[in-house]
Amino acid sequence: MQKRVGEQTIQLSVPVRIAATAAIAGPKEAEGPLAAYFDTTIEDALYGESSWEKAESKLVRDTITMAVKKAKLRMEDIDIMAAGDLLNQSTGTTFGVRALGRPFLGLYGACSTMGESLCVGAMLIDGGFARHVVCSASSHFCAAEKQFRFPLELGTQRPLTSTWTVTGDGAAVLSAEEVTGGAVCVTGMTIGKIVDMGIKDANNMGAAMAPAAADTILTHLHDTKREPTYYDEIVTGDLGYVGQELVCELLEREGISLPNYTDCGIRIFDREKQDTHAGGSGCACAALTFAGYYYQEMQKGTYKRILFIPTGALLSPTTTQQGETIPGIAHAVVIEMVR
Amino acid sequence: MQKRVGEQTIQLSVPVRIAATAAIAGPKEAEGPLAAYFDTTIEDALYGESSWEKAESKLVRDTITMAVKKAKLRMEDIDIMAAGDLLNQSTGTTFGVRALGRPFLGLYGACSTMGESLCVGAMLIDGGFARHVVCSASSHFCAAEKQFRFPLELGTQRPLTSTWTVTGDGAAVLSAEEVTGGAVCVTGMTIGKIVDMGIKDANNMGAAMAPAAADTILTHLHDTKREPTYYDEIVTGDLGYVGQELVCELLEREGISLPNYTDCGIRIFDREKQDTHAGGSGCACAALTFAGYYYQEMQKGTYKRILFIPTGALLSPTTTQQGETIPGIAHAVVIEMVR
Repeated sequence: MQKRVGEQTIQLSVPVRIAATAAIAGPKEAEGPLAAYFDTTIEDALYGESSWEKAESKLVRDTITMAVKKAKLRMEDIDIMAAGDLLNQSTGTTFGVRALGRPFLGLYGACSTMGESLCVGAMLIDGGFARHVVCSASSHFCAAEKQFRFPLELGTQRPLTSTWTVTGDGAAVLSAEEVTGGAVCVTGMTIGKIVDMGIKDANNMGAAMAPAAADTILTHLHDTKREPTYYDEIVTGDLGYVGQELVCELLEREGISLPNYTDCGIRIFDREKQDTHAGGSGCACAALTFAGYYYQEMQKGTYKRILFIPTGALLSPTTTQQGETIPGIAHAVVIEMVR
Repeated sequence: MQKRVGEQTIQLSVPVRIAATAAIAGPKEAEGPLAAYFDTTIEDALYGESSWEKAESKLVRDTITMAVKKAKLRMEDIDIMAAGDLLNQSTGTTFGVRALGRPFLGLYGACSTMGESLCVGAMLIDGGFARHVVCSASSHFCAAEKQFRFPLELGTQRPLTSTWTVTGDGAAVLSAEEVTGGAVCVTGMTIGKIVDMGIKDANNMGAAMAPAAADTILTHLHDTKREPTYYDEIVTGDLGYVGQELVCELLEREGISLPNYTDCGIRIFDREKQDTHAGGSGCACAALTFAGYYYQEMQKGTYKRILFIPTGALLSPTTTQQGETIPGIAHAVVIEMVR
């Protein structure tokens, strides 16, 4: 039953089908280059709720509900929900899934959560423990700024290395149903280690997470003996412009160049027109970009095979106040169009 | 490959061996009835660190390191660490495992985390995705009070329904090695749903979590068609005296009586001498009681088969401030001495 390849990589025994995805995005994301890929965009960050936190929970609930419907399933068909977010005690997710009444595994991997949930979900299906798993990750710009940095009302100036937390939720329904007639599938994964190279600047998450992303990419290529060009695209979660450059630099030191590498934080916002500084971030950055853009483009045939690597910075305001450095983590998910 | 039984229950294809456990407990726990079962007790809640949060991380690191050593493994043998805690962004765990350099899946299930980690860990081993998994859950009284309620320095009076957050970490090493000569094993599990019966009092966690515990126990018995007495003991995670009574009441309404039922929050502190009010709570309550007391007593033959049901209250201070009720969750783990 061993499905392990090399140090940290898992090759699933059969491709696990992504039966459907759903993406609900915030107002700023609706003005960005991926707008057309989202199922719904909301006009107001409050989404009809009385707080940003409640709005995030509603995003989670609605996105999961939509994904299940798009997969032509009933909520009762979902054996496990594996999901998380950035809010303290993951309440964006727990209050979002509360009414859905399905078995729940709460995950915390900061902005790597969509990667973690796809890894866990795909393994649980491949292992025969579930027939349908919903994976979800969410974030909300206003709730995240309030919790991690400053109240928005303060109008604090953001440094140029800072990224913009994406508002929204991306969800995917994984299914044990056999692949017939072509389907986007999870076929393997490399579960990441925590890497901390001593970055202390909580306004430079890209730099803090880049070493973890580089470590996971390197381990994945080593474990699988693949060249980077085995993939049509290698895409990290939310490193933005600063972090992406650092990944390239770190991998070049190891003699690896990535001609086919980009980052969801670069794809989701327009650099010139949207003034996010270093790009997008947050759990929803990778989740929305995958559930919206990549899933649809893979179905169209634009990409046959991608390596999707959501990245997380595992800090809290308390650890920063106590002078700690920022640990990073990144999980790589192999996603392929299987015919 | 289907291993599903009924609605929410999983029967593993082979028993997953708990190769070793380790338990490091705080000063108050060291004065309680389970003191002799802990590997180490710390004299000072700061554990030689400069903050309670850093102390919790050190507890995590030391306990996991000890568990791996007791399992006669090297840290490099650990394929996956599945762990979590109560601190914002789970930093008790992430900063604790940071230096251990192994693939990490962060979990958040509030005080149900030890149940969640044993479920995920056992499935990953049974599915062939890992040979050795470390499961861990931690909490720290001082850090939790500061974060969830009031600074300790304020000397706030605690209501009689409140429970005392346990300080410590309990860890278990799950192993794919074949069971020979008798071993304590995970053989199945019931993954819980979120249940919220409208309790709003954040000082009465027992009442908030009891409906989830009752729901999981009921579902487990129904799925497996077992009587409660199939188990030598049914033990919830941290409901304390108030919650335990409510579980009995809720199940009696369904025509089920539990003659063999107790709670880790009742076992870990002395009701008369330790003045905790409603008992113990926190991720470490279930984790320490299992890793210390139950694991050792099962090896001695006192219990052959237990149903271990860590319980979590999925609230945050923000949700309480915003007038929300408290969602609960509970995961049941079947633990048996297998010969």
